Amino acid sequence: MRPIWFDKASETVQVIDQRFLPHKLSIKNLMTVDDTIHAIKEMVVRGAPLIGATGALGVYISLVQEKNKGADNDYLVSECKRLKDARPTAMNLFWGVDRVLSAALTQDNYKARIKAALEEALKIIEEEAVNCQKIGEYGLPIIEDISKKKKGEPVNILTHCNAGWLACIEYGTATAPIYTAFDNNINVHVWVDETRPLNQGSRLTAWELGKHGVNHTIITDNAGGHIMQHGRVDLVIVGTDRTTRAGDVANKIGTYLKALAAKDNNIPFYVALPSSTFDWDITDGIADIPIEERDPDEIRYVQGLCNGKIEKVLVPPETSHAANHAFDVTPARLVTGFITERGVCRATESDILSLFPDKKQDKRIRYDAGNV
Amino acid sequence: MRPIWFDKASETVQVIDQRFLPHKLSIKNLMTVDDTIHAIKEMVVRGAPLIGATGALGVYISLVQEKNKGADNDYLVSECKRLKDARPTAMNLFWGVDRVLSAALTQDNYKARIKAALEEALKIIEEEAVNCQKIGEYGLPIIEDISKKKKGEPVNILTHCNAGWLACIEYGTATAPIYTAFDNNINVHVWVDETRPLNQGSRLTAWELGKHGVNHTIITDNAGGHIMQHGRVDLVIVGTDRTTRAGDVANKIGTYLKALAAKDNNIPFYVALPSSTFDWDITDGIADIPIEERDPDEIRYVQGLCNGKIEKVLVPPETSHAANHAFDVTPARLVTGFITERGVCRATESDILSLFPDKKQDKRIRYDAGNV
Repeated sequence: MRPIWFDKASETVQVIDQRFLPHKLSIKNLMTVDDTIHAIKEMVVRGAPLIGATGALGVYISLVQEKNKGADNDYLVSECKRLKDARPTAMNLFWGVDRVLSAALTQDNYKARIKAALEEALKIIEEEAVNCQKIGEYGLPIIEDISKKKKGEPVNILTHCNAGWLACIEYGTATAPIYTAFDNNINVHVWVDETRPLNQGSRLTAWELGKHGVNHTIITDNAGGHIMQHGRVDLVIVGTDRTTRAGDVANKIGTYLKALAAKDNNIPFYVALPSSTFDWDITDGIADIPIEERDPDEIRYVQGLCNGKIEKVLVPPETSHAANHAFDVTPARLVTGFITERGVCRATESDILSLFPDKKQDKRIRYDAGNV
Repeated sequence: MRPIWFDKASETVQVIDQRFLPHKLSIKNLMTVDDTIHAIKEMVVRGAPLIGATGALGVYISLVQEKNKGADNDYLVSECKRLKDARPTAMNLFWGVDRVLSAALTQDNYKARIKAALEEALKIIEEEAVNCQKIGEYGLPIIEDISKKKKGEPVNILTHCNAGWLACIEYGTATAPIYTAFDNNINVHVWVDETRPLNQGSRLTAWELGKHGVNHTIITDNAGGHIMQHGRVDLVIVGTDRTTRAGDVANKIGTYLKALAAKDNNIPFYVALPSSTFDWDITDGIADIPIEERDPDEIRYVQGLCNGKIEKVLVPPETSHAANHAFDVTPARLVTGFITERGVCRATESDILSLFPDKKQDKRIRYDAGNV
């Protein structure tokens, strides 16, 4: 199963509605650009590579919706801008939309354009699946080495949020080395940060790992430092929503705290990502990556199963305000290395560019409404 | 209002049942040692000084329950041991029980003994209230200085868990300087960590601050590092459940992560405590402070208000396990200073002992069943 697919019979884009997992597995059709934006904004779909794939298919959906079917550049670019505005932090959204937009714009005939858009979006999806598989292969030796040193005792890996196949297409980013190690009969155990406020760890990562048969234990986001102090974490692997060319890592809020604790306890802290998540235009993540602020009610209310029904409970006093910063930035100095589809590198600009030499000069092509 | 009191009319110990706050304020009578142990274990009462006060009154309750009313040392010491076993981390529990036990044992006549126990327990409660008031006074200049530097702009103080009057008797420990600053017309704003798993921040601290009129914003436990990176925190103040003579601080799980972030961003990190929370017998907190592991269902289920009723929702898959470490230890090197009833000091053994010179040689008197 994948979290997004193009259903050929009905010619529609379908996604898993991740808001109700693990208690309900439901499928949603994305029929319009508004549906697509809603799905991204409301986190029906989430996770950097999946947002990229959804944005990519969103460009195709915008063409399906084009009224006069006239290969109208202005319409297309402005729909793409709406898609890219759905969430501000994840790089893959801009990357996915721009890449499909770019492919579409090479055609000025409507039929050819819609075909090019769909093909490019589906190509992105297949490429990202392969990228995640490669991340798994490149990450495997890191886990294998620890397993050898521990003589087969469980390798304890801590992860934050969900960077599993639900967040990607297959394998996941942070989870790809874990699944690959597990499939190679390496004894792994995963500490799953519950990941407040939306509990992507306890809802999604735990569900994924459980389905795959991987041993795991849910902990609060508060607990990582303590278990690291007591030698119960061998390795941290997380995903990322945007990483600068110098190696600063935006990821789900709380990642920075885990990186600090890993550093303080000499535990390797790896970030797994496909190249689509690098922002080649910026170096300073704290200054330059916009951090989304979401609805405070995502903190105030917690969703779960109550008497067989999915319900939300209000935790704090009705009158207390909350602030919901969705991401933070972990400075490169706290990152041991990146696991990418081209191999593993240290978190410095020169090491990153040695894996991606084509990005040494490149600036990403950005399309904004009006400048085509 | 206080979280614990002795009702003279009915001659019973009464407490606020903190499990249902902020949605329901209910009062519970502690009639037996079992009631008292249950209240401590199940966190009807919680917070280091309050657990100490509850244990202290528990000794009195055990005497009320003494069947033959014969001033039986063995019975009393073994009931006290049961009380002290209720929770393993908070120093004040042992301190409070042992202090009342010690006072009771000076009397070998039942009536005199029960009178001595009640007097000593009530004395502890009044002393701790005064201690917290003094912590407020000694902490005030720290906030005042920042306020002056910021020319009256809000002083942003982050706190973790609840170390307010609900955790103490009056004022609180971490909150005492905040309330004192607020009452002195200093512009303060508090970032309230929700404090998973039991949400003492969003449930209790937010409720307390709201009732007092103090500006506050609830954040997830994940968010502190991010807001510190962006200059939105001026000061961290937390309480503690046990602090070693060398300054290692056990406090609610997650405190260590906030201390790391404060250090990384040059933000002062203070711990407020009465002397009853120091463990004068140990120096190395990570090695020597036992960390309680509580029921994993405290993580898996979240309680709150749903359609006007207090309900619990299950967040993760039914089959996923969780581990619930209740405290962590922040090494002294990360602590800027302690705010105590005798003043402020740095987090070193010599500085702590300069405030408490009477503890230079002293080892705490520990009573165990059988050794009286």
